[in-house]
Amino acid sequence: MSDKVLMKGNEAIAEAAIASGCLYFFGYPITPQTEIAEYMAKRMPKVGGLCLQAESEVAAINMLMGASAAGSRAMTSSSSPGVSLKSEGISYIAGCDLPCLIVNVQRGGPGLGGIQPSQQDYYQATRGVGHGDLRILVLAPSSVQEMASLTAEAFDLADQYRMPAMILADGALGQMMEPVDFSAFPKRELPEKDWAANGLSSHGGKKNIINSLFIDPNELENSILARYRRYEAVEKNEVRYEEYLTDDADIVFVSFGITARICKSAVAELRKDGIKAGLLRPITLWPFPKAKISELADRAKTFVSVEMSMGQMVDDVRLAVNGKRPVSFFGRTGGIIPSVEEVVAEGRKISENI
Amino acid sequence: MSDKVLMKGNEAIAEAAIASGCLYFFGYPITPQTEIAEYMAKRMPKVGGLCLQAESEVAAINMLMGASAAGSRAMTSSSSPGVSLKSEGISYIAGCDLPCLIVNVQRGGPGLGGIQPSQQDYYQATRGVGHGDLRILVLAPSSVQEMASLTAEAFDLADQYRMPAMILADGALGQMMEPVDFSAFPKRELPEKDWAANGLSSHGGKKNIINSLFIDPNELENSILARYRRYEAVEKNEVRYEEYLTDDADIVFVSFGITARICKSAVAELRKDGIKAGLLRPITLWPFPKAKISELADRAKTFVSVEMSMGQMVDDVRLAVNGKRPVSFFGRTGGIIPSVEEVVAEGRKISENI
Amino acid sequence: MSDKVLMKGNEAIAEAAIASGCLYFFGYPITPQTEIAEYMAKRMPKVGGLCLQAESEVAAINMLMGASAAGSRAMTSSSSPGVSLKSEGISYIAGCDLPCLIVNVQRGGPGLGGIQPSQQDYYQATRGVGHGDLRILVLAPSSVQEMASLTAEAFDLADQYRMPAMILADGALGQMMEPVDFSAFPKRELPEKDWAANGLSSHGGKKNIINSLFIDPNELENSILARYRRYEAVEKNEVRYEEYLTDDADIVFVSFGITARICKSAVAELRKDGIKAGLLRPITLWPFPKAKISELADRAKTFVSVEMSMGQMVDDVRLAVNGKRPVSFFGRTGGIIPSVEEVVAEGRKISENI
Amino acid sequence: MSDKVLMKGNEAIAEAAIASGCLYFFGYPITPQTEIAEYMAKRMPKVGGLCLQAESEVAAINMLMGASAAGSRAMTSSSSPGVSLKSEGISYIAGCDLPCLIVNVQRGGPGLGGIQPSQQDYYQATRGVGHGDLRILVLAPSSVQEMASLTAEAFDLADQYRMPAMILADGALGQMMEPVDFSAFPKRELPEKDWAANGLSSHGGKKNIINSLFIDPNELENSILARYRRYEAVEKNEVRYEEYLTDDADIVFVSFGITARICKSAVAELRKDGIKAGLLRPITLWPFPKAKISELADRAKTFVSVEMSMGQMVDDVRLAVNGKRPVSFFGRTGGIIPSVEEVVAEGRKISENI
Repeated sequence: MSDKVLMKGNEAIAEAAIASGCLYFFGYPITPQTEIAEYMAKRMPKVGGLCLQAESEVAAINMLMGASAAGSRAMTSSSSPGVSLKSEGISYIAGCDLPCLIVNVQRGGPGLGGIQPSQQDYYQATRGVGHGDLRILVLAPSSVQEMASLTAEAFDLADQYRMPAMILADGALGQMMEPVDFSAFPKRELPEKDWAANGLSSHGGKKNIINSLFIDPNELENSILARYRRYEAVEKNEVRYEEYLTDDADIVFVSFGITARICKSAVAELRKDGIKAGLLRPITLWPFPKAKISELADRAKTFVSVEMSMGQMVDDVRLAVNGKRPVSFFGRTGGIIPSVEEVVAEGRKISENI
Repeated sequence: MSDKVLMKGNEAIAEAAIASGCLYFFGYPITPQTEIAEYMAKRMPKVGGLCLQAESEVAAINMLMGASAAGSRAMTSSSSPGVSLKSEGISYIAGCDLPCLIVNVQRGGPGLGGIQPSQQDYYQATRGVGHGDLRILVLAPSSVQEMASLTAEAFDLADQYRMPAMILADGALGQMMEPVDFSAFPKRELPEKDWAANGLSSHGGKKNIINSLFIDPNELENSILARYRRYEAVEKNEVRYEEYLTDDADIVFVSFGITARICKSAVAELRKDGIKAGLLRPITLWPFPKAKISELADRAKTFVSVEMSMGQMVDDVRLAVNGKRPVSFFGRTGGIIPSVEEVVAEGRKISENI
Repeated sequence: MSDKVLMKGNEAIAEAAIASGCLYFFGYPITPQTEIAEYMAKRMPKVGGLCLQAESEVAAINMLMGASAAGSRAMTSSSSPGVSLKSEGISYIAGCDLPCLIVNVQRGGPGLGGIQPSQQDYYQATRGVGHGDLRILVLAPSSVQEMASLTAEAFDLADQYRMPAMILADGALGQMMEPVDFSAFPKRELPEKDWAANGLSSHGGKKNIINSLFIDPNELENSILARYRRYEAVEKNEVRYEEYLTDDADIVFVSFGITARICKSAVAELRKDGIKAGLLRPITLWPFPKAKISELADRAKTFVSVEMSMGQMVDDVRLAVNGKRPVSFFGRTGGIIPSVEEVVAEGRKISENI
Repeated sequence: MSDKVLMKGNEAIAEAAIASGCLYFFGYPITPQTEIAEYMAKRMPKVGGLCLQAESEVAAINMLMGASAAGSRAMTSSSSPGVSLKSEGISYIAGCDLPCLIVNVQRGGPGLGGIQPSQQDYYQATRGVGHGDLRILVLAPSSVQEMASLTAEAFDLADQYRMPAMILADGALGQMMEPVDFSAFPKRELPEKDWAANGLSSHGGKKNIINSLFIDPNELENSILARYRRYEAVEKNEVRYEEYLTDDADIVFVSFGITARICKSAVAELRKDGIKAGLLRPITLWPFPKAKISELADRAKTFVSVEMSMGQMVDDVRLAVNGKRPVSFFGRTGGIIPSVEEVVAEGRKISENI
């Protein structure tokens, strides 16, 4: 598949997973991510893999844990309420140092909420995806091409650092059709999975145990400290972001996913009016491009976090800016994508008060 | 019960709940909170209430939702992994504007972790307790007396603002025995539960519907905006904290729950050495005492967040201080309570570098 | 309620249960028995009882076990697929010698089947309601009045013999409206529940254990033998049936529940034609009126089991007749109630071949 | 594998299933059948199949239904309580006319019962394995060789008649080691699975629907009548049994599985004493060798059903003998295998009263 293929974002994730060697998919139906499971159901048997619709979201995440513990590339996908149900399982996977991919095609919340696109699960993804000290890799695609390429990247990062990765997408990206090139995924050298519980013969008769339980708190603390050293390596090496006209920007929009596309158009619009706007688009939400934003804060005059929520990433922007400049929030919630006009209007209002 | 009674922290929560008119308890056993359920199992039938051990944590939180929707005071309790499993349900309860009490007697995480005390669920409680834009009231007791009085307070706050409340305790507070006075709970005027789905006769034949699903995103957004206006009222009116020697402090420890007690002793110790230390103990973690810390940051020289985790509340301290002063973190994780000596040593080290 | 009340059969069961002191109802919705749960949901809170819609049929039967183990009168109701799901739980309850009431308002099967009335669960109720050697009391009402009175009777029998009882009804009886008199329930002297696990104080500090697990097979065999002695007492003392014109009958219809009403009309019709038909209506399906049928077989010329199934009770009729006379089967299945005309035609056909 | 292999009965079932082309195994652990799942977990990945430990027995049977609906040979195994939990699912599979294999390695019941061998699930297997009019094929092996060969046979029968098959074994046969020859399985011509829901391409674009729900009772009745015509064909063509010295026997023992082996020894012993005993061993419990027993009843003087239960198959023996001769029961229950001496003593006692 070296040429570009026109695909839905959800399908691009599924195809990219298979292209990345993912052989196990466990899911449970929920709008607006069901196309991922449908695609997997059709394709997996043809590549010798398994697509299983589990009894529940809880069952699905635990099956994912099993497949991952056995050393296989495996993924699950869901939408907001389903990810909450997977919360305990994600913490177990993190506590066992297992790699895997969890896709969250966000819908409006809280509760049943709605089925329109949303970015309301930023807090959950970056801070509360489960109990206990833990981090997961969070990648936020902004195009169908990135739905594919970040899926491939997420599997590699998960394997390299032995931790869960999440694609934090939304219903708009999931349903949108764009051309995708599957030929250009970067490959990284990955360590052997010599920790996997995949039979004694695979690693010289050594018995591997996958475990997150430590009765002795010193052992538990040590396991966490070792894990946080890996997290530090991630924060040092794996931050991804895109800049657009930030060099001379007075107003820096910080925005991810589908809203970043809106902001890009708004920046272009504002520039036409002579307002120096720019965009910093975090691609990794954890690790967050904190150093980059801090650096921009030495020069830019003000920051606006634009989100489809009541304001969640704005905390991370504020932590990065750390009082050097004003940070404000602009957004819509409940499934409404802010329009270019709304963002332009917000930019104008801010530029008048700089 | 006007005299003081010697009780375990877990029992104090249970008895306070009953004293506050809670008639429904739904739980599932997990160390170190099982005494709450045991106490409820014995006492509830005697007061005409119900204690039900559910099939799972997921079942328990949904039963809680049902009892709350019918207008009853109801609670559940669990420990860290169990709260993760309740994550979807908590989001549904928040999305339906229902009051209830969730107790988290934290243990070490992630995953199964350990059974020693922990404060690792701060992020989850304050930011990611479920998908979607939502907040819950989070109260952090620091003594067995507060296990009781904050339970009573939490029920009142939940009812007043129609939102879930959480007692964020830990295994040490749960197991610790101290005298408790049940006579002194403040009473507040609470609104009628005219929204409850408790039969047509209760509210003049009007049919109440409890719902979190809105297909029209404008309706969903409006419901969220209305909810956030209540959240603003909470942030304005309901912040609770305790100060200890902060007036002239150079070093302000910020610490909650069991670690705040350690920090208090450390402050006294440091003062003996002439080091001007103080303690700001947040009692409400959400709403966080942001304005108070910001005010302290105008004068105090440095802040240290002391937690039994890898550093979670420190984000909120930094957001409050907003770059005015250095903020550092000190803590132990995995179930280890930092000792007074360790905190004193940290205080000395910091005082040398001010 | 000494006068007659016009009620649906499902409601009559519910009201009779409450009148019999049942304080706990655990259910899960399934057509055509949902009115029972609805009625319980409205009435139970008013009598200080509990109606709980469980997470699943499996959860409901296990809650029933718990309430029964604590010495309370408790019931659950369902329809065919739901009773299958309760199968393991019923075996546990039987193995623990606990009394309780299970209502099966049968619908067409197998699988999802249909929602029309059926008698296809006769085999399951009388022989395979769970694994292991076990019997349950099975009572088959034939009118709305009996829906009520046999419910009261079933609770008493269950308590007296410490075993589960089942009301085996069907969708027609459940939906049908007839006048019911609640004043006339017989009362029997029942033994104290000194075996109940309801707190040490209830039985002089003795610790009761409810258990069905025996590692030593001799203990298990002894527990079964003791139980079968109770079963023998039931078979001796508690057989219930109704006879209609059997004294001189050549053709004896054997039929229960709604089909027995059809057969009664058919018998009257056939008698008009000079055909000596009669009806034996088993009210208890277990214990089955075996001796009575055997006795009738000494005189009557032929037997026809009329059922809404492919023929299940006919086995018990054959076992009772034991080759003395021909036994045939007539029935409709899939939710179709045989018409009086069909039964009359069958009677005529048989009378020609005697 | 043309030579004999020494194997446990449970392993023989598993290997025979794989040799028969079974590619999907879904299970849940329970003593004494866990070796089947263990064997499958090791072997399935090597033959390109899937062994999945499900979240529950209920999940396992529904996965089995899915695999079977897609046209694959699939099996599950459990022991008594687990089979009860599968009861609803088995009825659904039967109602959808799907072939599959369910293994029940019986343990003592009811309830948790014990972990010793038992034959107490005869009633359930032959009559009440689920709600609704239904039959399943029930095969009862009596040696490790038959554990294998009847597994192969069961898959073929299930496919030919599109119905579930059950291997009704017990813990003794499951744990026992004997040599097995895997080379000699008979092969029968089987129909194409043109009804399978395995993708449009497999059957010329025709959309197959697997369904057990019929709102119109006439349709439901017709589907049942069609199914019962297949059942009649099974009863006509597929009865299996073994005879041992029945030709001139006065006393015919009827016994299956492990107890049949005991009876064979007892028959030999009784013959030494000049008592004309014989054995009829049903291999298929449904269809039951009714005609054969009826035929024997024309000549033999008395029948004894020997079972490890309180007497269940004895009903079928009585129905077959139909009053022509006395039928008695002898057995032990709770996990106790009757000894040869006990059966011989019973035989002597009976011979004295002929």
